[in-house]
Amino acid sequence: MSLLALFRRAPRTANVAKERLRIIVAQERSTRGGPDYLPLLRRELLEVIRKYVNVDPDAIQINLEREDDQEILELSVALPGK
Amino acid sequence: MSLLALFRRAPRTANVAKERLRIIVAQERSTRGGPDYLPLLRRELLEVIRKYVNVDPDAIQINLEREDDQEILELSVALPGK
Repeated sequence: MSLLALFRRAPRTANVAKERLRIIVAQERSTRGGPDYLPLLRRELLEVIRKYVNVDPDAIQINLEREDDQEILELSVALPGK
Repeated sequence: MSLLALFRRAPRTANVAKERLRIIVAQERSTRGGPDYLPLLRRELLEVIRKYVNVDPDAIQINLEREDDQEILELSVALPGK
């Protein structure tokens, strides 16, 4: 699935929270042996989001996918309304 | 410029470092007044990258673009070879 498809996947209907924050991390890896940063970054990125956005951790959607030589981590959170 | 185009922009020629880490943050904003998380996240994300990847801060490409109701921050770094 292409990267942008990840962004388009969520329906943009009225009832979807208008404000949304998405963080996508893509690691292009030439060799299998290289370090895998995504699991490490995943926890840190969650902490960074929660530091600025007052949101329930369960409300953060997390997705990890492999595509060719690329691993893609997606964190998506509906931002609290005012 | 579409989000995926940001990923495709860098040429994939042989001399480009094979291992690359890209972090893209997209904030969909319905109202102008809402908080702008990207500048805040930018500094934190740099720190997270440097915590795990031994890389020169100047080697991290940073890009901030606005597209319709979406602001897109891209951090891209060539990972050090083994």
